[in-house]
Amino acid sequence: MNRVKELFGIKYPIIQGGMLWCSGWRLASAVSNAGGLGLIGSASMYPDVLDEHITKCKKATDKPFGVNMALLYPKIEEHIDVIIKQEVKIVFTSAGNPAKYTSVLKEKGIKVVHVVPNLRFAEKAVNVGVDAIVVEGFEAGGHNGKDEITTICLIPLVKKEINIPIIAAGGIGSGEAILAAFALGAEGVQIGSRFAASKESSAHINFKKAIVNAVENDTILTLKELAPVRLLKNPFYTKIFDAYKKGATPEELKILLGRGRAKKGIFEGDLIEGELEIGQVSAQINEIKSVQEIMEELTEGFKRVKNNLNNFDF
Amino acid sequence: MNRVKELFGIKYPIIQGGMLWCSGWRLASAVSNAGGLGLIGSASMYPDVLDEHITKCKKATDKPFGVNMALLYPKIEEHIDVIIKQEVKIVFTSAGNPAKYTSVLKEKGIKVVHVVPNLRFAEKAVNVGVDAIVVEGFEAGGHNGKDEITTICLIPLVKKEINIPIIAAGGIGSGEAILAAFALGAEGVQIGSRFAASKESSAHINFKKAIVNAVENDTILTLKELAPVRLLKNPFYTKIFDAYKKGATPEELKILLGRGRAKKGIFEGDLIEGELEIGQVSAQINEIKSVQEIMEELTEGFKRVKNNLNNFDF
Repeated sequence: MNRVKELFGIKYPIIQGGMLWCSGWRLASAVSNAGGLGLIGSASMYPDVLDEHITKCKKATDKPFGVNMALLYPKIEEHIDVIIKQEVKIVFTSAGNPAKYTSVLKEKGIKVVHVVPNLRFAEKAVNVGVDAIVVEGFEAGGHNGKDEITTICLIPLVKKEINIPIIAAGGIGSGEAILAAFALGAEGVQIGSRFAASKESSAHINFKKAIVNAVENDTILTLKELAPVRLLKNPFYTKIFDAYKKGATPEELKILLGRGRAKKGIFEGDLIEGELEIGQVSAQINEIKSVQEIMEELTEGFKRVKNNLNNFDF
Repeated sequence: MNRVKELFGIKYPIIQGGMLWCSGWRLASAVSNAGGLGLIGSASMYPDVLDEHITKCKKATDKPFGVNMALLYPKIEEHIDVIIKQEVKIVFTSAGNPAKYTSVLKEKGIKVVHVVPNLRFAEKAVNVGVDAIVVEGFEAGGHNGKDEITTICLIPLVKKEINIPIIAAGGIGSGEAILAAFALGAEGVQIGSRFAASKESSAHINFKKAIVNAVENDTILTLKELAPVRLLKNPFYTKIFDAYKKGATPEELKILLGRGRAKKGIFEGDLIEGELEIGQVSAQINEIKSVQEIMEELTEGFKRVKNNLNNFDF
């Protein structure tokens, strides 16, 4: 029995992260068609755009899919209206407090999963009644917690205290890492970076190539005073670095960050001025592949390493 | 076949980290007697003290054990003389460049293992002929690299390029985490924090209790401008934090750090002024146990989770 597969009615307990500017209907439906759970990333969409993506996703797959909502999004209630109107069955919430909207969604029969970066927030999410949690380590791309707790440390800690299904995120881009996450106590995984660099991702080709070219120390978790974010070190990051060296205040950092940087980098492919949100696992990504190829690699890798481990005994 | 067991002639591929002020002959011999590989941590020992610990360790166990050497230690050549005179068979080197001493040790028939925090240093270590590498993630306690690469991201990256045995370190304190490390490509693990809090550790009881009391966000990797170190956040760390906020120079940080802080904290139990080096996994450590109990927990945990995983298939 695997509770993540049962909860969503999917073949593989592999969830594709709902990443802004990457996860449109094309990516989400491809992942769902390949047996995982695709998520539309609504944080980069106006309500009418989200509505359109959901409609297209329904046409592209008859499998379950969901929507990721960043709870700090200013038009969140309009997003919720779209989700309810469209009868979306699964919602992942992140970047905010799940207390307010979890019951609203659950009353409509929607499965709700919340993303947390530590045990304290995991316990809060359980208390407001979410169906599962995504537990995301320090190595994950994009917005993250301030505590810097890594996946290998965080999953067992949460597992010990929490009984609802745990979906591990952060540093997972291979079948080997999926098996590691399961060993630590997860029943599913959420994978971002690997799918951000897929053919079906709506990210700009420049961004996908930047992921492929990234090496081990090319990402950093920064801007902790605003909202911590892991990104590729590019000339825009150098400006952040220099600002920190000069003792910039949060207000100055906010001005430097400005608006629309993630769109500029991820969607428009501006590798100089854009904010290139991606995980540490990007160093392991060496090719832009289709979702189908990625899913096969993940499931085959899992089986292979599991068989290898069976030859080892303590 | 497990190359780590074969290399050292041990029953379990579990290495106890050679931690300063924790890893004397008592801890090292207990781990070796329990089937792992005990390491004497020489970084906190004068050459004559190291000599004495090796002599006592030989008396306490007839199993293989080793010595950890921090290559930046000022009297390193005297340590090497002691190790050669005592016919120690296994040396782990860390915190420095292995180019100079690896061949010296290997000519004496000593197995040499080097600790690295990234792929670049792993490749350098292989090039100078080490027998295995410890690959240590960001979550590890004590001195560490600047790149912040976590265990789950780092092990697969190194595994892909390196053919000698990989011993994973950082965030490993349970059988579950050992299995995760093996899934990622390791053939052995090095465990520090768990053994630092063991009955046989020579650390002060105050320090052991501080490990037991630590929660998820109680450690931090800091002092990156000097030598990055992961430690418990205590009043001494608050001073570091305040110094950073005021824009302290590396020279000012060095003065603040001063000398003998690790001894003060770990060995003398001064939780206010001491430097309390420990890993993020401390949040999972809830009891001071004997080495024998810890080893049983680790091996039983590994078997249990491996059996559980066998019930799951993709």
